[in-house]
Amino acid sequence: MNISDFKRWYALHREEIQRDYFTFLSFPSISTDPAYEGEVQKTAEWLSTYLTNIGMKSSVIQTTGKPVVYAVELSAGPSRPTILIYQHYDVQPVDPLPLWSSDPFKPEVRGGEVFARGAVDNKGQCFYSISAIRAFLQLCKERRVNVKLFIEGEEESGSRGTFAFLEEKQVDLTADHLFVIDFDLPKKGEPGITLGMRGLVTFTLTFQTAGIDLHSGMHGGIALNANRALATTLAKLWDENGKVIIPHFYDDVQTPSKEESAQFSMRFDGAEYLEKFGVSAFCMEKGFSPLESNWFRPSLEINGMLGGYAGPGVKTVIPAHAEAKLSCRLVANQDPKKIAESIVHFLKKEAPKGVKVESNVFEGARAFQTSSKTDAVQRVRRALEEVFGKPCQFQMCGATVPIVPALVNASGAEAVLFGMGLDDDSIHAPNEHFGLDRFEQGFLTVAHILSSF
Amino acid sequence: MNISDFKRWYALHREEIQRDYFTFLSFPSISTDPAYEGEVQKTAEWLSTYLTNIGMKSSVIQTTGKPVVYAVELSAGPSRPTILIYQHYDVQPVDPLPLWSSDPFKPEVRGGEVFARGAVDNKGQCFYSISAIRAFLQLCKERRVNVKLFIEGEEESGSRGTFAFLEEKQVDLTADHLFVIDFDLPKKGEPGITLGMRGLVTFTLTFQTAGIDLHSGMHGGIALNANRALATTLAKLWDENGKVIIPHFYDDVQTPSKEESAQFSMRFDGAEYLEKFGVSAFCMEKGFSPLESNWFRPSLEINGMLGGYAGPGVKTVIPAHAEAKLSCRLVANQDPKKIAESIVHFLKKEAPKGVKVESNVFEGARAFQTSSKTDAVQRVRRALEEVFGKPCQFQMCGATVPIVPALVNASGAEAVLFGMGLDDDSIHAPNEHFGLDRFEQGFLTVAHILSSF
Repeated sequence: MNISDFKRWYALHREEIQRDYFTFLSFPSISTDPAYEGEVQKTAEWLSTYLTNIGMKSSVIQTTGKPVVYAVELSAGPSRPTILIYQHYDVQPVDPLPLWSSDPFKPEVRGGEVFARGAVDNKGQCFYSISAIRAFLQLCKERRVNVKLFIEGEEESGSRGTFAFLEEKQVDLTADHLFVIDFDLPKKGEPGITLGMRGLVTFTLTFQTAGIDLHSGMHGGIALNANRALATTLAKLWDENGKVIIPHFYDDVQTPSKEESAQFSMRFDGAEYLEKFGVSAFCMEKGFSPLESNWFRPSLEINGMLGGYAGPGVKTVIPAHAEAKLSCRLVANQDPKKIAESIVHFLKKEAPKGVKVESNVFEGARAFQTSSKTDAVQRVRRALEEVFGKPCQFQMCGATVPIVPALVNASGAEAVLFGMGLDDDSIHAPNEHFGLDRFEQGFLTVAHILSSF
Repeated sequence: MNISDFKRWYALHREEIQRDYFTFLSFPSISTDPAYEGEVQKTAEWLSTYLTNIGMKSSVIQTTGKPVVYAVELSAGPSRPTILIYQHYDVQPVDPLPLWSSDPFKPEVRGGEVFARGAVDNKGQCFYSISAIRAFLQLCKERRVNVKLFIEGEEESGSRGTFAFLEEKQVDLTADHLFVIDFDLPKKGEPGITLGMRGLVTFTLTFQTAGIDLHSGMHGGIALNANRALATTLAKLWDENGKVIIPHFYDDVQTPSKEESAQFSMRFDGAEYLEKFGVSAFCMEKGFSPLESNWFRPSLEINGMLGGYAGPGVKTVIPAHAEAKLSCRLVANQDPKKIAESIVHFLKKEAPKGVKVESNVFEGARAFQTSSKTDAVQRVRRALEEVFGKPCQFQMCGATVPIVPALVNASGAEAVLFGMGLDDDSIHAPNEHFGLDRFEQGFLTVAHILSSF
């Protein structure tokens, strides 16, 4: 069994795979918004049934958060290696909806790209992996590898229940290799493996300055405005060099050694970047390049900010309430909880006197890093080089799959992070899209890995 | 004809008046939101028909903005004095809707107070005035004063079309006295006249940092965040003493003389204020008392602020776009356009390099001030003292009825500002309410004025 067998199989099943992929995309499995709880559950059930139909032993397992879909195919037996594949079936919210060119939950193909929420992140990557398992099970009757497939439902919202589920050890996730297929290629047509990713912590902040919104004429000049309090306090987070001012924020940050840095492709074309994303301004900390900043430095973002009247026209109120949603990407050794608490502490201290500040820190995740020398990484490297016909590059990722460190613990496996995304797929944004060519390359890569044992 | 005739008339018509007042309140005549354009028109038509029915010559006059309702009763003849009464029939938006205890457009009486959007501001004040005219026309067959009633439909949204209408001089607004009945009592049961009010200018600001919202992992540390750009820029508007830093902001501000200050009741109980409005923090400029700050100093407010994800949960985006709605209350001699332009200029200059800043300055209004010695003021003072049985106080108002200076010009009249509002009526906020006792006091005051000629 070699790659051309899988190519033939794919050609024969292309339409059917696309139809099922589109059905998967049509579920609005937005995990962060409680309004979609029922849809998340339906997605898990559909997915589990699908996995049963392709020959795996699958179940939907409830957690204190969103359900996990867990499926195994262990016919190779305990003397053979076991791989664990990680995916997630939940997606990000879709707003601002008016900026979508088509319905985010009615996939449309335009110019060879599938447009839908989750097209790539991560229903697309999930579905080519499942399709590869399906082909492998059909084509290979005598299996030399056991497959465990772990698909969570709350990657986009902090993985709280999934973390708890892993701690309870309800299922045996022991494996030799862990493949986390939720990442990007360095460039279209160029294969790559991601050796590490940043951690994440998210939190919200509310500023209350009065019982109700006040008339700006009657109270202007007397009562403090919650928007003003919030803006002036948030502005204190950075100094003029773009450095986060919070005490101890950088304490646990380690600068990579020259040898570590040397293994990465550090190409970054600033002008191309600005044009590609319509970005009008950089924000690196002084003294760091864009990739150093994105890969090896923690970041602090105001993801959302809302206070007072936001409708059409104007309304001359002094808002009583303003809120911000914040997040940090973290690097090796930074503790999510400690970082979030130090920021909240700082903001409470810096807020104008009298303002009632409340905060809510969500589950965080530590950063993750592996070596390029492991068996697992080398196995994926060979598969990618075979499929793409080009040498594989190594990179880091500024983003986060929060559950990875916990999955590494639970499985005892060597982890590899890879995927077929591109940085201009508009994931988490309007008009997310994924190329059907990359879907097929992903399929072939996973199939190659499965048949490499 | 004296005040007891009007009291009797009111007792006989109380239910009918309340029914019609509630019908008036049930129209969602929100002028700032284009979605309510049809409702604003319907309100004007209903009101004009009502005025025709009580014996005035009334019409709905289209402007380039919202229509004006203009009604006259000129049977006293050209040798007798003419009064012009100003009102507005439009209301503020109702959000946040969940904080209302009852439907804002289904008036409800609880504890003698009418709860509805516009209950006081200004449908309540408008309707007791109309009711007083109605009683006057019924009870007084030989009239010694001509009445002109000018009711605009966009007081809450900048009066753009109404300003243009006044400049065109389509109707003859010449009058001896102008009564602007859109103001507050100093305290419940205590009569007062407002000798001046602040001006107003409103504007919006948008910050654009990218073409689309970006993934905070992929781009965090590289691309500037529109929320961060907006918060850090807005924070530069004030210094640590609460003074607005914008160059020339205070250039045209005049401090009132000791004699001017002496005519005002300057009582202000800070502790009572904080408790009454649930205000948790003051924001006066250093060196000014709350009333000095509200009456004689310009203010700058962030009325609305919105950027990135504002839904439930979290979404780890770097927003491409953030916006703020701002307004200033102005004092004598400050030019609205000049002030707004200097703020916009400052913010564009202070925004991080590369951020695309756009602004939209709306129509402004100058401050207004009169003397306590005019015939018009003294006439209202006598009416208020008769109705309330207490000496009348003089005060200033931090709020704005933008059209007043233009109406003074158009009418050539001596203006008086008064009304039956209270500072805790929650105007512009959820659960706006107006006491039926104050409605009757307002009715009697206007009736007394009409019969005083």
